[in-house]
Amino acid sequence: MRAGPSQEEIRRHNLGALLRHVHLGGPTSRAELTSRMGLNRSTIMALTADLTAAGLVREELPRVTGRAGRPSLVVRPESAKVYVFAFDAGVDRLRAARVGLGGVILDRREADRERGPFSLDGDVATLVSFARQMQRKTRDDTVCVGAAAAFPGGIGNPGGVVRFAPNMGASDVPLGEELARRLGLGLPVTVGNDANLAALAEQSRGVGVGSRDLIYLHGDVGIGGGVIVGGQLLGGHQGYGGEVGHMVVNPGGRPCGCGSRGCLEAEVGERALLEQAGRFGGGKIGREAVRAIVDAADRGDVMVQESLGHVGDWLGFGVANLVNIFNPEIVVFGGMLREIYLGAAARVRSRITLTALAAARENLRLRTSALGDDVLLVGAAELAFSHVLADPLEALARVGS
Amino acid sequence: MRAGPSQEEIRRHNLGALLRHVHLGGPTSRAELTSRMGLNRSTIMALTADLTAAGLVREELPRVTGRAGRPSLVVRPESAKVYVFAFDAGVDRLRAARVGLGGVILDRREADRERGPFSLDGDVATLVSFARQMQRKTRDDTVCVGAAAAFPGGIGNPGGVVRFAPNMGASDVPLGEELARRLGLGLPVTVGNDANLAALAEQSRGVGVGSRDLIYLHGDVGIGGGVIVGGQLLGGHQGYGGEVGHMVVNPGGRPCGCGSRGCLEAEVGERALLEQAGRFGGGKIGREAVRAIVDAADRGDVMVQESLGHVGDWLGFGVANLVNIFNPEIVVFGGMLREIYLGAAARVRSRITLTALAAARENLRLRTSALGDDVLLVGAAELAFSHVLADPLEALARVGS
Repeated sequence: MRAGPSQEEIRRHNLGALLRHVHLGGPTSRAELTSRMGLNRSTIMALTADLTAAGLVREELPRVTGRAGRPSLVVRPESAKVYVFAFDAGVDRLRAARVGLGGVILDRREADRERGPFSLDGDVATLVSFARQMQRKTRDDTVCVGAAAAFPGGIGNPGGVVRFAPNMGASDVPLGEELARRLGLGLPVTVGNDANLAALAEQSRGVGVGSRDLIYLHGDVGIGGGVIVGGQLLGGHQGYGGEVGHMVVNPGGRPCGCGSRGCLEAEVGERALLEQAGRFGGGKIGREAVRAIVDAADRGDVMVQESLGHVGDWLGFGVANLVNIFNPEIVVFGGMLREIYLGAAARVRSRITLTALAAARENLRLRTSALGDDVLLVGAAELAFSHVLADPLEALARVGS
Repeated sequence: MRAGPSQEEIRRHNLGALLRHVHLGGPTSRAELTSRMGLNRSTIMALTADLTAAGLVREELPRVTGRAGRPSLVVRPESAKVYVFAFDAGVDRLRAARVGLGGVILDRREADRERGPFSLDGDVATLVSFARQMQRKTRDDTVCVGAAAAFPGGIGNPGGVVRFAPNMGASDVPLGEELARRLGLGLPVTVGNDANLAALAEQSRGVGVGSRDLIYLHGDVGIGGGVIVGGQLLGGHQGYGGEVGHMVVNPGGRPCGCGSRGCLEAEVGERALLEQAGRFGGGKIGREAVRAIVDAADRGDVMVQESLGHVGDWLGFGVANLVNIFNPEIVVFGGMLREIYLGAAARVRSRITLTALAAARENLRLRTSALGDDVLLVGAAELAFSHVLADPLEALARVGS
């Protein structure tokens, strides 16, 4: 019920909107921006001039014009010069990337991680050393405008405190502050729930582009969820929304790390699958173990097929519930759930058909992540860029470029 | 990524915002509006003049001023002159009300309904006759600006087609069109899912005022849900979102009218409670039967206490899942669930404590509907007024006043 915006607010909004166009859509001609943004040519020219002066975009002649007359200049994001650091702290692996404006992964590092409690000392040191290594390789005319991390847990923001993360043995861990302190770039480090960031990544650059109602399900050791409702990420009252892995699908079922029983995570997670396939406590764990199971099922191992089908059935129950609750346009399976879904798609689909309301599922699409193993890095990078897209000049003024 | 709004759009936005202030907040002084809306006095004066000329508000001297100097005029909604028709088509009862701007119920009618398929002929005729009776009693200087109906089913909009409603035996019923045709007011009749409208009603005028993350659960024969996420009603891709009554809480459990088993509605709905209490197929049904059970439990009937506790446990499972998925600030129990929750609150709470993540429930409030049996009429009235609040002058121009 606020009053309308001022002219200056409109200008800032438009600067952000133009930058978002080229950040997500890639190089775009002024003519195209004029038509897409519904603004006149002189306004587009002025906005582009401001963003060019700030070093965020540059204009150049298009390579091929196809038309007679003076060609419209193309506006490109300064991907090689303006970048963020993106971190992905997974149970089995630590990853970091330097990501340029426009979403280009310019450089990356990763290392395996021993399962066990997340360490604000060792694990953070590894992530920070990755960033330092990558930063040393940058040219002098580059500028880091942000940093963000994806983490498999409930995050209290602002400040990026990990409130709970049973699969990482973490509770009330001030991850954002510690990363910022050790990075020493004078920049805050935002922290987001991994599946939430993946949902945003798939919606902005993956299989869900254009969808306003998307559910992303991430399988690691646990099951995380990111839900986009009417174009907005479901945060909830304190930001812990989307914990669909702890929806009980099987009351009295398998014990879950959260203390409850029969959660989606307990019935569909890595441990449930390995145990039922008779492969728990053996050699392989994590993604490698899940891939081996799906391969064995493909080769005709009946016991493994049955365990995969069983897990697929519970996954179907979970998805059917979410379809009835959210009426999504698309459900995306990422992380380990990509393999599980591909290995048990028929069971998942059949359970959804039996359980979800016909109207709620009639236009439903089930898809695997298009961004694959990069989904969390891409999502963290988008989070790191978000303040630049919200108010480009203000954000740059803050990093002092 | 659109460009900013024009001056005319800002004016329309501000007209709607001012009208919304007095519609929801009641009579408000110009000084208060100036401060709440962040606009200057002359703008507020101009907006109020426009709304006054349109007959939507009037200005008058405050009764008591408490301050020295010239008192600020109070802006009131024209509740007696500008009204909508609100309809509530329930399984056991048909209701209609004439509701004035500002949310005042000016007149009302209701009648019991035999359970059975909803009839586009008989049931609609009853609702329309209620509206006609009430309209005949209005003065000549009144104007009907809209009409809307609450219905326990999935609604396809625009057009207000009931896509599915197992408890009303209705599918693909063009309710909105038929109501509009028979009313003959030259106005469209919007139709909304009953629990969705109740969620909006509780958020705008009930126990959830100010909450941006609210879940409303409505018990009739079935269980409906309305979910508000970040201040917006969860609609989903086609508008069928919020069907939490068909979340499976007990796989393989009691059969549900939707064709599945173990849905929240099947485990917590009227039939489950009556059967378990040994009172199904007897005399009483509906709200009366549920009240009798809660009363018997209060008086110490052990079998009834146990069946109520059992139902409360499943309700707790359902709410715990929703708490993990949505991290709401408040969950509101309405319709028959008001009685069930009051009769089994300890069981519901205990199940939520066992099952929901601690962080997601730490600030949770569980409440019963503040609007009681009027909640659906209030919600339908808000739906009917929504186009007036979105663009007051345009809406009035359309009704030709």
